[in-house]
Amino acid sequence: MSYNRKTRPTVNECVEGILSGDRILLSRTITLIESQLHEDNQLARQIIEKIMPYTGNSTRIGITGVPGVGKSTFIESFGNLVVGQGHKLSVLAIDPSSKKSGGSILGDKTRMESLSKNENAFIRPSSARTSLGGVAHKTRETLLLCEAAGYDVIIIETVGVGQSEIAVHEMVDFFLLLMLAGAGDELQGIKKGIMEMADGIAITKADGENMNAAKKAKAAYQNALHLFPAAESGWSAKVVTCSANENTGIREIWQLIKDYGKKVKQNGYWQERRNRQNVAWMYEGIDEYLRTGFFNHPAIKSELGKITKQVENGQISALKAANHLTQIFEQKSING
Amino acid sequence: MSYNRKTRPTVNECVEGILSGDRILLSRTITLIESQLHEDNQLARQIIEKIMPYTGNSTRIGITGVPGVGKSTFIESFGNLVVGQGHKLSVLAIDPSSKKSGGSILGDKTRMESLSKNENAFIRPSSARTSLGGVAHKTRETLLLCEAAGYDVIIIETVGVGQSEIAVHEMVDFFLLLMLAGAGDELQGIKKGIMEMADGIAITKADGENMNAAKKAKAAYQNALHLFPAAESGWSAKVVTCSANENTGIREIWQLIKDYGKKVKQNGYWQERRNRQNVAWMYEGIDEYLRTGFFNHPAIKSELGKITKQVENGQISALKAANHLTQIFEQKSING
Repeated sequence: MSYNRKTRPTVNECVEGILSGDRILLSRTITLIESQLHEDNQLARQIIEKIMPYTGNSTRIGITGVPGVGKSTFIESFGNLVVGQGHKLSVLAIDPSSKKSGGSILGDKTRMESLSKNENAFIRPSSARTSLGGVAHKTRETLLLCEAAGYDVIIIETVGVGQSEIAVHEMVDFFLLLMLAGAGDELQGIKKGIMEMADGIAITKADGENMNAAKKAKAAYQNALHLFPAAESGWSAKVVTCSANENTGIREIWQLIKDYGKKVKQNGYWQERRNRQNVAWMYEGIDEYLRTGFFNHPAIKSELGKITKQVENGQISALKAANHLTQIFEQKSING
Repeated sequence: MSYNRKTRPTVNECVEGILSGDRILLSRTITLIESQLHEDNQLARQIIEKIMPYTGNSTRIGITGVPGVGKSTFIESFGNLVVGQGHKLSVLAIDPSSKKSGGSILGDKTRMESLSKNENAFIRPSSARTSLGGVAHKTRETLLLCEAAGYDVIIIETVGVGQSEIAVHEMVDFFLLLMLAGAGDELQGIKKGIMEMADGIAITKADGENMNAAKKAKAAYQNALHLFPAAESGWSAKVVTCSANENTGIREIWQLIKDYGKKVKQNGYWQERRNRQNVAWMYEGIDEYLRTGFFNHPAIKSELGKITKQVENGQISALKAANHLTQIFEQKSING
């Protein structure tokens, strides 16, 4: 297919491109989603509406774990296995660092060197930071585009800082928690609430000297999981050990995810979970609409910087500032 | 002061009542804030604007820790100490359970029996659940009202599930993390990101057989904290052990908070942190305004339930549902 790279592609160009698996048009559409421009978002919305009938057919896997747990190497090993079995894989990220200082977790494709070179793998760095929130919403839309482009296994990765795991959990079918064994347990420990969300736990770096500690941790976590109330899914979370370096345990995790899928598709929970996620998705869509309408309004755009500075300097209160901006918005919306 | 309890108090009645420390009018105003009715929120907004000049003069303390760490007993001991020294204390809660099943963390005042009977303590159960978000925003407004009513120490409590600590951290001067020593470390461990936010860590239940484990944990956490980069505040987080049962360590924690306050008021960080929080507050105020306007619109109110059910049943997609609702909103807003 040929199109002009310098101009914006049309809705139909994007839709056809995505459905035919064109990576460049897929990327460009994701860029439209992540854009700060209202017109770009509008265009993205139209594209998504058209590709909707072709979505939903992937296994959506959420992967989380603290920095240092070996997420990139795990995803690389896991991804190579999955792609090697004939699947098309895409790796997306939710990066909550927008509100904190800190680097993007997928900013560098070289992190997953061999996987990123595979034509059946699509790795997308995390979306641009925005103070307007909506990162999760944009990730969901990106997921839909990937599904329409034929990716049937989608990994959504997050760095563990609390908010993001919850957001990821709300958009995946299977939630995998990566944990380190041994030294530093106190520090890297994951809270009960996060463990409770996990459908599977993988103890990483289970090799060499670490092997024993990993086995012990496996037993300990498996015991701990028994203490949780039975999950609605009828599935009991499993703990496995793995080593991305030695390429062990990776196959077991993929099998685990497939077993899970089989079980909960049978008992109806798979669809039930997705339906529930869709309601959250609807609310996010509304939020996104409201925020975009507000912060892209010319009158707000021209005032926001000044007012923010005044709040920062303590010249006006947060409440007065919010009132001032909402009043401007109300008047301008009424009077055009 | 006399007023009719059956009708809504006026703005001026509330303002005067709050400034004179009337607990009933304080409670009724908080109820206005938490109300789902637009008119109540409007009234609350006017009250808050009037009491703004009388706010800001408290020490705002965030307290978090996993269930079982002994938050209620800690707050009771701590609160009794603070009130005994002539302070007026209020205890508020952020309860993120709105999005999950689970009980309210401060629903039962009997949790802090002696404290709740003290006339200089004001304990407020967590605000009503709402799918519209804004819980943090409402807690901030409640905090302002308490300050105007003369409460000079305010505790904002949260149950640890990830999102809420971050919300609390964004509205307090001092963030205290409660942790258990010994058994179950793997499970109750708090993530590095949360530890990094803490200005102080208290190892609870440091008594009897637990004493040794608590001391060890104190040393371990103190060492761990040294590994973190220096805080902007110039303050290094301290770890203490305490026992609410034996009433030990509680005084040290209060002293710690006062030391912190002294230091960061001198170096300017206290105000800087509050100014930064105010910007977040402004954004939340805008969000609240947008959501209230949308979800209280009669056309949306009458459609939302039906559409939500259709999404739950998989009859329409989340995106279509969001689009449908936003289109209704847009048309009705324009045509009256």
